[in-house]
Amino acid sequence: MVRVYRYEQNPLITPSDIKPYHEGFEVIGAFNAGIAKYKDEILMLLRIAERPISDDPKIVKAPIYHTDTDELEIIEFHRDDERYDFSDPRMIRKASHSQEIEYLTSLSYIRIARSKDGRNFTIDEKPFLYPSNKLESFGIEDPRVTQIGDTFYICFTALSPLGIGGAMVSTKDFVTVKHHGMIFPPENKDIVIFPEKVNGKYYALHRPSLKSIGKPEIWIAESDNLLYWGNHQHLISLRDGMWDSGRIGGGAVPIKTDRGWLVLYHGATPENRYCMGGLLLDLNNPAVVVARSDQPILEPEADYEKEGFFGDVVFSCGAIVEGDVVKMYYGVADTSMACAELSLEEILDFLTYY
Amino acid sequence: MVRVYRYEQNPLITPSDIKPYHEGFEVIGAFNAGIAKYKDEILMLLRIAERPISDDPKIVKAPIYHTDTDELEIIEFHRDDERYDFSDPRMIRKASHSQEIEYLTSLSYIRIARSKDGRNFTIDEKPFLYPSNKLESFGIEDPRVTQIGDTFYICFTALSPLGIGGAMVSTKDFVTVKHHGMIFPPENKDIVIFPEKVNGKYYALHRPSLKSIGKPEIWIAESDNLLYWGNHQHLISLRDGMWDSGRIGGGAVPIKTDRGWLVLYHGATPENRYCMGGLLLDLNNPAVVVARSDQPILEPEADYEKEGFFGDVVFSCGAIVEGDVVKMYYGVADTSMACAELSLEEILDFLTYY
Repeated sequence: MVRVYRYEQNPLITPSDIKPYHEGFEVIGAFNAGIAKYKDEILMLLRIAERPISDDPKIVKAPIYHTDTDELEIIEFHRDDERYDFSDPRMIRKASHSQEIEYLTSLSYIRIARSKDGRNFTIDEKPFLYPSNKLESFGIEDPRVTQIGDTFYICFTALSPLGIGGAMVSTKDFVTVKHHGMIFPPENKDIVIFPEKVNGKYYALHRPSLKSIGKPEIWIAESDNLLYWGNHQHLISLRDGMWDSGRIGGGAVPIKTDRGWLVLYHGATPENRYCMGGLLLDLNNPAVVVARSDQPILEPEADYEKEGFFGDVVFSCGAIVEGDVVKMYYGVADTSMACAELSLEEILDFLTYY
Repeated sequence: MVRVYRYEQNPLITPSDIKPYHEGFEVIGAFNAGIAKYKDEILMLLRIAERPISDDPKIVKAPIYHTDTDELEIIEFHRDDERYDFSDPRMIRKASHSQEIEYLTSLSYIRIARSKDGRNFTIDEKPFLYPSNKLESFGIEDPRVTQIGDTFYICFTALSPLGIGGAMVSTKDFVTVKHHGMIFPPENKDIVIFPEKVNGKYYALHRPSLKSIGKPEIWIAESDNLLYWGNHQHLISLRDGMWDSGRIGGGAVPIKTDRGWLVLYHGATPENRYCMGGLLLDLNNPAVVVARSDQPILEPEADYEKEGFFGDVVFSCGAIVEGDVVKMYYGVADTSMACAELSLEEILDFLTYY
């Protein structure tokens, strides 16, 4: 089994620690942070979700940021409007098309929190990344940070009425940012780039969401410049009756070990209970699966993991590895951030090898 | 208006012209061909759809080709099995999830037909492209052929239980083929590559099919080597109440004109009436739309266009341009191939400029 040491300071960051950036909004989430080591600090690239304050419980509000006019529009819905389905607090759906999302109830952007000890963080006043083009008007979510040389490549989910895809920016100093556009076309999420070339190619995990045929499973792609991607291959499937039977996606940046590339990935049941598990890929060809965890290595057990805006969720977008210690940072209950330490060897021993 | 000269020989190729490749199968479609000029001939890269013969009208059969074992499996369904929806003759759906396709009722592959005059074709005995990996086990469909230098790049839809995506092969002689894998991840179709670099980049049109947010609309991507693609941008939307209100996708390879890149694209209504229209993109930046046809340039009017396996469909995957003459080859009723000649100038004059 894999022992889990949750920090005494958990949750490390909660919405109440964050001052809203938008007037008339409340912060409902500070979670699913990408993680980077920069100079002598650990940076959390927090996904901050802000919601327009509604004084009337019968009114549901949906924010859209129009990048062309720099206008933040707020659309109001009556909760008893039968044309819409308000049952998921994260979104507004059309009543007749249960899969189709009409609007989101919050707008997410990225803000940085900084720490010297990895437990106590200071939060930047201003957003680090904010929606910047029409493919991001519903917000940007769930960043993953891959350092290659002195450059940090940040992949995140870009949402708009046009679709949900994987965008990328890069930075050397977390101040100046280069925009590289949408690198994985919709519908896609959970883009995670490997930290070095393997056999002359860059690799990335991605998670298409499919309409007609197929399931929300993990795929792998290759590139020679990180901007353009191809040779998409299906990597792993959902497993009926198991912890990862409903949907899966890459989590932390793959960790190079002598047994292969270790991917910490999330899996959820159809009932949306999100856990973290392990996946091991061949060191010389990451399109080949070596091992996978039949049981989760982390599941929602603490109160702050079980209860929140969207409960029963642990969801990691980044980890720091120091020797045998994996410091896995993870979002809890779509609300806050936490961290747990696990042993790399214990994770590797816990996997089922094929 | 755009005058349309349909060939007297239409339909040029029908299923009855094709000998089935699989024993116990019947050819139900020879359509949606990619077009190439090679040496002194016009080649049609026909999509051939073959269906397992069923003697019992109550039995519906679904073919799957297992590339790893080279086995062609046929699954049988009872038409009165209430778990499934057989209302679309092309596929078997789950009754409870109307959007999800469970199986296809035919297997498609690519076969070449050759002609010196563009009207009378001789059909190759053997397939030119056949499913070759597990992403193609439900078949390969709707090729588009782009010639760059002496190489022909052939993009097509790859279908399997894992998803529907855009694959590519290349050839210099239509004998030896290089496989480049899936270049656009699922769910995607209608990949059409531009015939030359524009401002130092290759471009391609593609058509994601979206599950949660967004519609089946045309996007554009860029590349520096044709294998890896990025900077995905949304190009054009559906138009309510018009001929292209239900779904759209790129058709023939873009035609370079002095007014811009002319794209012949298909549009369908929600009731699945497929027409062809025109789209004009900026000569130096094809992500910018210059003009678009408010009316179709070709719509299903002839008997062979209105009636067939799936009627009321004209669907072009390739054209030959000679001076002002556009010889637009197109699939009809998901059954046969036809060709019509149109004037390039008339098409350009017919568009509405923005």
